[in-house]
Amino acid sequence: MTDQQSMQGKFITLEGLDGAGKSVATEAVVSTIQEAGFEVVTTREVGGTPIGEKLRKLVLSRDSEILSNAEVLLMFAARSQHLEQLILPNIEAGRWVVCDRFTDSTYAYQGGGRELPFDRIAQIEQWVQGEFRPDLTLLFDADIKTAQQRVRQIDSPDRFEKETDEFHNRVRNAFIRLHSLHPERIKCIDATLDVNEVKDISQRYIKDFINQSHG
Amino acid sequence: MTDQQSMQGKFITLEGLDGAGKSVATEAVVSTIQEAGFEVVTTREVGGTPIGEKLRKLVLSRDSEILSNAEVLLMFAARSQHLEQLILPNIEAGRWVVCDRFTDSTYAYQGGGRELPFDRIAQIEQWVQGEFRPDLTLLFDADIKTAQQRVRQIDSPDRFEKETDEFHNRVRNAFIRLHSLHPERIKCIDATLDVNEVKDISQRYIKDFINQSHG
Repeated sequence: MTDQQSMQGKFITLEGLDGAGKSVATEAVVSTIQEAGFEVVTTREVGGTPIGEKLRKLVLSRDSEILSNAEVLLMFAARSQHLEQLILPNIEAGRWVVCDRFTDSTYAYQGGGRELPFDRIAQIEQWVQGEFRPDLTLLFDADIKTAQQRVRQIDSPDRFEKETDEFHNRVRNAFIRLHSLHPERIKCIDATLDVNEVKDISQRYIKDFINQSHG
Repeated sequence: MTDQQSMQGKFITLEGLDGAGKSVATEAVVSTIQEAGFEVVTTREVGGTPIGEKLRKLVLSRDSEILSNAEVLLMFAARSQHLEQLILPNIEAGRWVVCDRFTDSTYAYQGGGRELPFDRIAQIEQWVQGEFRPDLTLLFDADIKTAQQRVRQIDSPDRFEKETDEFHNRVRNAFIRLHSLHPERIKCIDATLDVNEVKDISQRYIKDFINQSHG
């Protein structure tokens, strides 16, 4: 490892269905990284930049009619801006970036949910990210009934939340497929467990990762 | 030519700097096609669909900070929706579609103006359009002084209009490069000529094209 690489921060992403418990775990993940002595920036997709937040409104609005191909390009437009403006500069400055959703969500929602081929998404991923990938991804897996019960507490469902059960099952299965494709990077956590247990497991994965990369 | 192909409409695009005279020529182009007995739909980019018009506002707004890669993806997101919702269905129904700006503008503004490599734009073009290209493109070429004098009559310049002279010169040169790359498809018209002459030349190109494709 060169000096420059060792001074760089890491990129951690949290993935899973809405309601699977990503936000519950975020705090635990962030505090674990901070306790190890690193600065942390938290962010989210779709969003993270002024233009990204405008695109978030557009793609989540129930009034928007957006076809699958356009949706992929909009997601990656927001991601490209997010990478160049926020994620890469922070990592290069030595900070760790913890991001709620990233490209795995595009594979899951547009690939799985909307049934676009993974290899078509991979072409745009390559165009936008080159070889850049998350260093570690925590995937919070829950059956769609559990996830939906938690989401129902939120007022009005967005463009994705209002999709059918079949759609959300395809999304969940795509996440599981991603886990099997990238078992080293993606750690799958059973999000139907007790909340404290989910936090504990998340912290353990983060600690293991810190020990591996800085041990 | 199969029966199905001969029943399809054609796709005509108008390109050039703002103020070069695209809109002046549109009416002449449309009436020439109609007089030959074809139904015509006119549209524009960025735009042409509800989501495309929202993206138009976003990318043209002077308040938007959008990096070059994200800009390309936003342009093609709007284009993908435009193709699937409006352009292709109309062409398949036998109508001719006349479009103010299309992918040549992405090569000119993001390729020429923002200096992204043409081959990077070509990758997204291929992803969105496959082999689909305009059947005929009229390129209205004017020096940037002439074009800018005409644009100045419009109130407030948008994100592209407020760019430097160097930017607009690169855009113009990229259009000329596109002409040299695709001399069969792109017809270059000297837009500094008298308006009526520009209209006449445009009509002549359209008539020649109709004779060639339906003669």
